[in-house]
Amino acid sequence: MLNCGIIGATGYTGMELIRILSRHPGVCLAAMTTRSKVAVPVQSIISKIPRSLQGEVRFYTFDELKRKCDVVFICLPHTEAMEAGARFYRAGKIVIDLSADFRLQSWRLYEAWYNAPHRHRALLKHAVYGLPEIYRAQIAKSRLIANPGCYPTSAILGIYPLLKAGLVDSSEIVIDSKSGVSGAGKKLTPGTQYCEANENFSAYKVNRHRHRPEIQEVLSREAGRPVEVTFVTHLLPLNRGILSTIYLRKKKGASASAVRKAFERAYGDEPFVRLTSEGLFPSLREVQNTNECRIGVMTDSGSGRVIVVSAIDNLVKGASGQAVQNMNIVCGFPEEEGLE
Amino acid sequence: MLNCGIIGATGYTGMELIRILSRHPGVCLAAMTTRSKVAVPVQSIISKIPRSLQGEVRFYTFDELKRKCDVVFICLPHTEAMEAGARFYRAGKIVIDLSADFRLQSWRLYEAWYNAPHRHRALLKHAVYGLPEIYRAQIAKSRLIANPGCYPTSAILGIYPLLKAGLVDSSEIVIDSKSGVSGAGKKLTPGTQYCEANENFSAYKVNRHRHRPEIQEVLSREAGRPVEVTFVTHLLPLNRGILSTIYLRKKKGASASAVRKAFERAYGDEPFVRLTSEGLFPSLREVQNTNECRIGVMTDSGSGRVIVVSAIDNLVKGASGQAVQNMNIVCGFPEEEGLE
Amino acid sequence: MLNCGIIGATGYTGMELIRILSRHPGVCLAAMTTRSKVAVPVQSIISKIPRSLQGEVRFYTFDELKRKCDVVFICLPHTEAMEAGARFYRAGKIVIDLSADFRLQSWRLYEAWYNAPHRHRALLKHAVYGLPEIYRAQIAKSRLIANPGCYPTSAILGIYPLLKAGLVDSSEIVIDSKSGVSGAGKKLTPGTQYCEANENFSAYKVNRHRHRPEIQEVLSREAGRPVEVTFVTHLLPLNRGILSTIYLRKKKGASASAVRKAFERAYGDEPFVRLTSEGLFPSLREVQNTNECRIGVMTDSGSGRVIVVSAIDNLVKGASGQAVQNMNIVCGFPEEEGLE
Amino acid sequence: MLNCGIIGATGYTGMELIRILSRHPGVCLAAMTTRSKVAVPVQSIISKIPRSLQGEVRFYTFDELKRKCDVVFICLPHTEAMEAGARFYRAGKIVIDLSADFRLQSWRLYEAWYNAPHRHRALLKHAVYGLPEIYRAQIAKSRLIANPGCYPTSAILGIYPLLKAGLVDSSEIVIDSKSGVSGAGKKLTPGTQYCEANENFSAYKVNRHRHRPEIQEVLSREAGRPVEVTFVTHLLPLNRGILSTIYLRKKKGASASAVRKAFERAYGDEPFVRLTSEGLFPSLREVQNTNECRIGVMTDSGSGRVIVVSAIDNLVKGASGQAVQNMNIVCGFPEEEGLE
Repeated sequence: MLNCGIIGATGYTGMELIRILSRHPGVCLAAMTTRSKVAVPVQSIISKIPRSLQGEVRFYTFDELKRKCDVVFICLPHTEAMEAGARFYRAGKIVIDLSADFRLQSWRLYEAWYNAPHRHRALLKHAVYGLPEIYRAQIAKSRLIANPGCYPTSAILGIYPLLKAGLVDSSEIVIDSKSGVSGAGKKLTPGTQYCEANENFSAYKVNRHRHRPEIQEVLSREAGRPVEVTFVTHLLPLNRGILSTIYLRKKKGASASAVRKAFERAYGDEPFVRLTSEGLFPSLREVQNTNECRIGVMTDSGSGRVIVVSAIDNLVKGASGQAVQNMNIVCGFPEEEGLE
Repeated sequence: MLNCGIIGATGYTGMELIRILSRHPGVCLAAMTTRSKVAVPVQSIISKIPRSLQGEVRFYTFDELKRKCDVVFICLPHTEAMEAGARFYRAGKIVIDLSADFRLQSWRLYEAWYNAPHRHRALLKHAVYGLPEIYRAQIAKSRLIANPGCYPTSAILGIYPLLKAGLVDSSEIVIDSKSGVSGAGKKLTPGTQYCEANENFSAYKVNRHRHRPEIQEVLSREAGRPVEVTFVTHLLPLNRGILSTIYLRKKKGASASAVRKAFERAYGDEPFVRLTSEGLFPSLREVQNTNECRIGVMTDSGSGRVIVVSAIDNLVKGASGQAVQNMNIVCGFPEEEGLE
Repeated sequence: MLNCGIIGATGYTGMELIRILSRHPGVCLAAMTTRSKVAVPVQSIISKIPRSLQGEVRFYTFDELKRKCDVVFICLPHTEAMEAGARFYRAGKIVIDLSADFRLQSWRLYEAWYNAPHRHRALLKHAVYGLPEIYRAQIAKSRLIANPGCYPTSAILGIYPLLKAGLVDSSEIVIDSKSGVSGAGKKLTPGTQYCEANENFSAYKVNRHRHRPEIQEVLSREAGRPVEVTFVTHLLPLNRGILSTIYLRKKKGASASAVRKAFERAYGDEPFVRLTSEGLFPSLREVQNTNECRIGVMTDSGSGRVIVVSAIDNLVKGASGQAVQNMNIVCGFPEEEGLE
Repeated sequence: MLNCGIIGATGYTGMELIRILSRHPGVCLAAMTTRSKVAVPVQSIISKIPRSLQGEVRFYTFDELKRKCDVVFICLPHTEAMEAGARFYRAGKIVIDLSADFRLQSWRLYEAWYNAPHRHRALLKHAVYGLPEIYRAQIAKSRLIANPGCYPTSAILGIYPLLKAGLVDSSEIVIDSKSGVSGAGKKLTPGTQYCEANENFSAYKVNRHRHRPEIQEVLSREAGRPVEVTFVTHLLPLNRGILSTIYLRKKKGASASAVRKAFERAYGDEPFVRLTSEGLFPSLREVQNTNECRIGVMTDSGSGRVIVVSAIDNLVKGASGQAVQNMNIVCGFPEEEGLE
């Protein structure tokens, strides 16, 4: 049994990790931490886990965690996460960081967008971007996994095959993303109050969301040239899910069937990405509470546009499910273990 | 033109008052206060008011308010409200207090349930409970109106006619109330976060809600004997509205038609209470954004029970609309002015 | 492997059965029927089942079903269900009927409330009411299980221990139930249209719901005397869940601790009923997508009332989950199999 | 008093018209029609109108309507609407048609997209597209107003000023629109059932919505050259509102301030279009139940993109409110009458 620790277990991604790992046959939840010194039974904070799970959530010292855990999942706010990540990494642990702290290879980009110094620049070259559909081989050999952001997961999976295959113009990418409210985390804010979000819909951080550089860095790396995207995020009145509608410009000569084939080739063997049947597009309903990304695509030959719709559950494939998928890869479990 | 002040204008009831009073032809919004010294244009905090309303929300000194206002609506938390209410009352103003501070005639009851000293006990005898359907005459002569709580408005209007007419047993009253989330106010709390309240439903403060003594005191006064009720409140996943399902025991000999007649007699001339047709019951949809209370009633002769369903908008008839109705009564406007 | 058939697989309860049974290790989905002669891949109608499930939903003749199935789950409208139930029962199959057709032991009651003749009265004495917490032993020996209604499951589980223990007055029972919209089934009706149900809440079939005689018959049988209840149903703006708030009158001498103990004794060993900690009450969130019934209880010594709050998922413990629990009992599987 | 008829009064747009017109001081609701011969009191089908409105909804013969009405609002499905529109127009009435039948000047386009013959082609040249912000002068002189579609209203108002001012590339227009469920009308369909739409979000009719040719025809006319747009529609889990996020390519030399100025110039005097402050974008909350279109705009000089967010209430500015605005223009009422 692999001993897992969840650092920051009371936020949405931490709670979702507990739910998933409590059903994973190969792991044991060795420690679930929070800042409070008072231990709280996990049963009392997460309502829907098996009665058999009898742990507690509490403060642990670093030494305790070092002793107890083989793998640590870090569910802390950015800037805090990098400190924890660095310590556990140096202590020889497998680190899966759900924050943004190790996602950008460029610390300059990090510092510009996150408005904070990156105090562990040297570690960035050891970190692997934890999107298995692109970086599975590297993930398998790494001990520092930067788990992707929720929007980037949905966007990159919808764009990458076409860019890689050279079928679309890398300078004409528009990503219109819509996210459920859990994407904003558990922190109390006016915008996530029920009466504010309910029966409402709006764009926010228009083209300024911190996930934009993350999308751009990955796509640039894979395209082999700088890729800039237009990226607008919106808040949906529902709990879970991200749906991204992506507008691309087809290169001359690229056919509709080549477009579909690029997706089929990229994801044909993927356990967690599914292309919808021709003419169909995914809904959030289909992916909620699953680790799947479902993708629909159409090519409009008239206008030369390719329209891709990509749907995930922001807390599963967009966070904790993908983190477990990464753990499975690193630790040699079957990739679907605990995720079906 | 009557000069009105709203003390605490940025909460839900304050904002609703602004919306209503901005359309009232007889009044002028002389002052809208908040704690912040920085003035904020009212247009920027309340999205849906006429462009012509050009005021600002800011801190005012007591003397400024005294100079500017004839009527003050107090939208402060309880215990704070009593201080403001006392000062304005003593300054000769008409005070309409939307908090609980002057609702209970008994300061002992107040101190027991609100867990705080009542520092203006002497004023309680000047305060009138602002439920026009029962106390219209007294309201007209008062300058200190205790605007009723939202749950009590819905419950009392559904019970009072039957109790008054002696048709039901005063010791067998069950009130099962369900409220939308705006009833909890604008304060940030975990329970009113979108992801917590959405797709969820639960009972809270089971038989312990502070509106219970308020309901009991009014019903006891009207029944001429101590009335105790069982009162359970629930949180509905919607923005506005309270629906109370009330279970009463019919007295022997009381007929179904006597029951209906008691409501018709009590509310036949009321502008804001409507009895539904026989066999029909109100939905929240019908009363949202209106100052109406709609009531449906059925008598089950078999079991001897009377079932009453009473629906209001908690922010209108349950708060700000009723406050304006009270102002209309006190100040001699037609009672419906601004409320249709 | 046990061969299961789902008769009427495209409604909400049929689809939920498919979801549950597709994860049950001991059964195989031998047939999923619908009226249409055109076979539809199950993957295309139910979005969230494992990719490995590759069956289809289509019309089957009775003889085909007889050959293919050991157990049949009947998810047809009442009156249609009794015909199918009778045929499969006579063919020696294990029948689990999710309709109301075999729930009432009295055909007179059935005919009065369902406004239709009961054409298989003789079978009623073979049918067992499939509420394992009361009738587990009988279920184990039966081949005709009448799966309980959703409201009755939530109501009976909240009342039965107190009535059985003689702690409450059997003539003073008020059940105020609130159900999510899936309870109304998949049929297109104006009341279940999004714009009608959303942001709305209302009582319906006030004291006239067909689940009332079902609740009364079971409680009467267990109490050993006729029990009549007052029962009001409401429509909640959410997909899944029933929460019933139940008001009982404590008998003289019954203590608060006796009340709690009655629940602990009744459900201490039950895999799917959980009593909340003292002072706490369940929310729908805790039981959605689970086969659990959670119950909270408080005794108000002042008024002598016992208040019980009982929560279930109407499609799981209130329908398809309980049906699988019954199958597990009849067929000798562990009772939790497929339901965790 | 102007006598108004509503042909097809029981759908969402008809009901919204009744709500608006019942508060319009200059008109009288002379006839509200439906197919049913049985008259139904309007109070019983529309819950929230003044008690004073005492009409009924029923079938009327053409001659009755001709006698009773000066203006007819046609709220019928397309193809049916053109017949009614033609008869009333020829009878000398003012016709405001809320269907698509007279919106496209090209009958060829109509027949291609609506898959039906246009039987009143000759009338098309008399019809004016009822978007006052562009066609106010023509509307004032017309008797046949084709009230715009809801999506086109939101899209055209967000694009037209920039296209007219020559600031954006007319061949690079992406419109990502999201609509509340009432946009689908009152017809019972699986997709608008509560359990299907709630907690869900999806794209539909991807680039195939019938409002695309409408948008293209108007923009082409105003740009003086053929304009093709990419247009994807999505279904939001809320009742009312359309928010369109529009992606445009700025022409070289066009500055961010020129972009803002184009909107200020176009809408500075408009009563129902409001540009948000720089850096802010509208939410649906701000426009629900109003006749306003609110528009936010940002220019990203890096990528050369202009992003426009445009929000309306689909039933008001997107249908019945705009219809009344058109009536006010044609009939010489102040344009805001009844709409504030």
